[in-house]
Amino acid sequence: MGCSRVGLTLLSLLVPLGFVSSTFAIQPDAEYLAREKQFGKQWAAEDEPIQQKLAALEKKFGKKPNIVFILADDIGYTELGSYGGGKVRGFATPNLDRMADEGMRFLSFYSEPSCTPTRAALMTGRHPVRMGLLGVLFPGTAGMGLVDEEVTVAELLSEAGYTTGMFGKWHLGEDPGMTPIEQGFDEAVWSEGNPPWWGFHKGVKRTDNAGYVNMGAFAWAPGPEGFPYDTGGIMSGKKGEEPKLVAPFSLELYNTMDTDVADGVIDFVERNAKSEKPFFVYYAGKGNHFWGAHPDFMNQPAGTNNSAQMAEHDHNVGRLLRKLEELGIAKNTLVVWMSDNGPMYSMHPHGGYSLLRGEKGDTFEGGVRVPGMVWWPGTIDQGQETVDIVQVSDMFTTAASIAGVKNKIPNDRVTDGIDQSALLLLGEGKSRRDYIFHYNKDKLEAVRKDQMKYRTKPKEKHKNCYNIQHDPGERYPDISRYCLWAGPGFGRMIQEHKAMIEKFPHRVQKGYQREFDYPFDPMK
Amino acid sequence: MGCSRVGLTLLSLLVPLGFVSSTFAIQPDAEYLAREKQFGKQWAAEDEPIQQKLAALEKKFGKKPNIVFILADDIGYTELGSYGGGKVRGFATPNLDRMADEGMRFLSFYSEPSCTPTRAALMTGRHPVRMGLLGVLFPGTAGMGLVDEEVTVAELLSEAGYTTGMFGKWHLGEDPGMTPIEQGFDEAVWSEGNPPWWGFHKGVKRTDNAGYVNMGAFAWAPGPEGFPYDTGGIMSGKKGEEPKLVAPFSLELYNTMDTDVADGVIDFVERNAKSEKPFFVYYAGKGNHFWGAHPDFMNQPAGTNNSAQMAEHDHNVGRLLRKLEELGIAKNTLVVWMSDNGPMYSMHPHGGYSLLRGEKGDTFEGGVRVPGMVWWPGTIDQGQETVDIVQVSDMFTTAASIAGVKNKIPNDRVTDGIDQSALLLLGEGKSRRDYIFHYNKDKLEAVRKDQMKYRTKPKEKHKNCYNIQHDPGERYPDISRYCLWAGPGFGRMIQEHKAMIEKFPHRVQKGYQREFDYPFDPMK
Repeated sequence: MGCSRVGLTLLSLLVPLGFVSSTFAIQPDAEYLAREKQFGKQWAAEDEPIQQKLAALEKKFGKKPNIVFILADDIGYTELGSYGGGKVRGFATPNLDRMADEGMRFLSFYSEPSCTPTRAALMTGRHPVRMGLLGVLFPGTAGMGLVDEEVTVAELLSEAGYTTGMFGKWHLGEDPGMTPIEQGFDEAVWSEGNPPWWGFHKGVKRTDNAGYVNMGAFAWAPGPEGFPYDTGGIMSGKKGEEPKLVAPFSLELYNTMDTDVADGVIDFVERNAKSEKPFFVYYAGKGNHFWGAHPDFMNQPAGTNNSAQMAEHDHNVGRLLRKLEELGIAKNTLVVWMSDNGPMYSMHPHGGYSLLRGEKGDTFEGGVRVPGMVWWPGTIDQGQETVDIVQVSDMFTTAASIAGVKNKIPNDRVTDGIDQSALLLLGEGKSRRDYIFHYNKDKLEAVRKDQMKYRTKPKEKHKNCYNIQHDPGERYPDISRYCLWAGPGFGRMIQEHKAMIEKFPHRVQKGYQREFDYPFDPMK
Repeated sequence: MGCSRVGLTLLSLLVPLGFVSSTFAIQPDAEYLAREKQFGKQWAAEDEPIQQKLAALEKKFGKKPNIVFILADDIGYTELGSYGGGKVRGFATPNLDRMADEGMRFLSFYSEPSCTPTRAALMTGRHPVRMGLLGVLFPGTAGMGLVDEEVTVAELLSEAGYTTGMFGKWHLGEDPGMTPIEQGFDEAVWSEGNPPWWGFHKGVKRTDNAGYVNMGAFAWAPGPEGFPYDTGGIMSGKKGEEPKLVAPFSLELYNTMDTDVADGVIDFVERNAKSEKPFFVYYAGKGNHFWGAHPDFMNQPAGTNNSAQMAEHDHNVGRLLRKLEELGIAKNTLVVWMSDNGPMYSMHPHGGYSLLRGEKGDTFEGGVRVPGMVWWPGTIDQGQETVDIVQVSDMFTTAASIAGVKNKIPNDRVTDGIDQSALLLLGEGKSRRDYIFHYNKDKLEAVRKDQMKYRTKPKEKHKNCYNIQHDPGERYPDISRYCLWAGPGFGRMIQEHKAMIEKFPHRVQKGYQREFDYPFDPMK
């Protein structure tokens, strides 16, 4: 078949040049292969000390490193204190700022433009378009989600001998086969659907209060008869079991969700800290979600749900990091923290903020450039900050690499996520990515290469090209000054990217609205 | 006269309430008096430990503290690494970031909206509208500038026994009586007019190169006959002498200006370090001025004049701080660093950047919210950052206070600058200002109180009010949610502010264009 022939062609091209076959279990995108031709020798040389470092750590601790993924929700690039927010925005994020100070802070970390897509990319290392998962899954969507054929980071790490757990917002489908306990997690406690949608639950009245707003202030909703979302709550289960609804929806549950999720994560960490097996835990927080505020965190100067949720999430991340230290396992634990996309302005001021242009759902920087950082005391040098480009899918491949199972990533599909262990362990300048394909649903809206960003079909003529260093706010497109010259390079990148898609075609998923008699297609 | 009667009325009001008369040499604006009624006792209590601290320092070092003002040019709020810029913008500012780390970083520091006005406010502690100095002084403007009746910080500090020096861009008028050596500085080396205008000098050809641009790329200029600016260069002099032109204009001189200015400052510091007298030096740098780039600093990733100038200025501030340390006088020297206004986008990408809305010449945050910090090892605690509101005029009053001559500030006029020594010496939360009157030329365009900003006459209806914490980018005015309630408060503030102007009327200046046969009024 086409796929394997390409593999062989590339193999015959690369092997004589001395490229290591360890990268070969994975099928990267064309642009990575072009870079590998240029930098492969250098990368192979860098990989040696990394492998030695990881081997020494494994010897010292008697197991592979634990891995924690924390995915926060809708937190804009300029929200944390360490990114120019914090006090400036009327709240404080001392724990997240401390995490940044003690680890590596990414200044060019990119998500997908919305919630479900970023979660899909984090779990599989693939742009969600490749698996037919385009936008946000709406409540009651069926026939759509993370299908069994996709290989998740939880499945890979299970193969590597990890105990795996997931807590929080899953939002990758609810059909049989799509839940976290069927996607590689040994145990999970997760929300059905997308928790903010709980605000539309038929039990919620417009006069009910969730934090600083009553539900009628922001959300129009039809009456119970026509209402699309009448179930929901907290699901729980273990691998091999049937998922159970353990707590039906309530606004109170939504208000305290991040803290409840963190409690679950901390409990999981405590139970697994002294095990012979390393653990992987995925903390999918509530983050920053316009309505709902934990009553204990409503005393922020800004007086918004956003500020209460930022303070709550910051507190919970602090609790988790301190717990890792107390348990004496911090030095054998990689913690990755990131946001899933930019803020949602339709809920201003409760839905977060970014000084960058655009919001959740956009491929402008405000939608996809998000705060992100890694923490691993003793292994990742503290006090680092870098503009090296990183994409959320890279965390999949990097985790697989650090756990020693990168060769288990299937090569019958394109994996977009790039192994960034060199960046984490060797420091600034070592990112193996200088490009991103920015998809919005099924459209390739923008391509990034180095400091240049090319928009394929801007709404206004000639507003194709931005220099992200000169103009992080994307206000001054200037085709003559920068893009006329960059254009042909972008053309080649896109052409080769599309050729790769022809060889490894996208999965197609067709969702529908359950409990309703009309078809529902969130792709439209 | 009206003025003294008001003084007496206020005195009779305040003295029975126990307010200290030390604040009485100065005539603050009405809003400050209202706050003093509320907080006067607390402030008086805080002043005691400050005075003790300053007295102990004077005893230890045998003289009052040295004071350094560094005013950078056109540097936007988000440019320094410590404010979210630096690498993100394609250059590095390690020395300014170190200064922030070792001192106090202001997150709500406000300038006037342009160059001459900010310089006037810094020198006199007064909004420039009060002295009839409205916009940027254009080349060849005469009959306008810092008039003799104004009292400068250099004059006050001279009275306090300081040796005073000024180096760099003066831009406060060129008529007799207006030069730095006639305005309190013992010595000065300064630019005639506004150095960037040198680019229009009749000797400059459109094909001449200044950094990354040739002059024709950005600046249209008429031929030599009609050209308004045919003189210019570096002036020099000592108090009591006639100013001399020591170096005629050249593009080379402009390219290296910040470094040459820093050389002058460092030489002054070396000559005065061991003196029995403390020194005050005003370093008015080139900063960030669209054309011109020092050839030694053109290797920045961004490849712009802005990046070269940022790197150059950063280097020079680093040299100065290290020199203070080498000379063993850092612990007796207060260094204030600030920008004079936001970036100038008409010169993008060479004229700087801010993620905030607006630019130089605007009272939107992008025009007036600027980076600012103070450094005084051992006296100002390191690692502080604060959102306490500070205005550039406060540096005048604070310097006078620290030098013990606040009582020499004349009380026959309003001084807007507030003594911020409590904020500097006691830390966050101690700002005595929670308001700003944002003037643009002679228009009161906006009023700030706490986190709210009220625009008096927005171009679009109902876009009056912004919550600067919720919306630092000023995108979401919402009169119903926030401003309907704040409105009456702003009304009172403006009314009392205007009443004070009636009592202490603005000076009126009327400039004209010398060497031309038509009158020139930059106020229009």
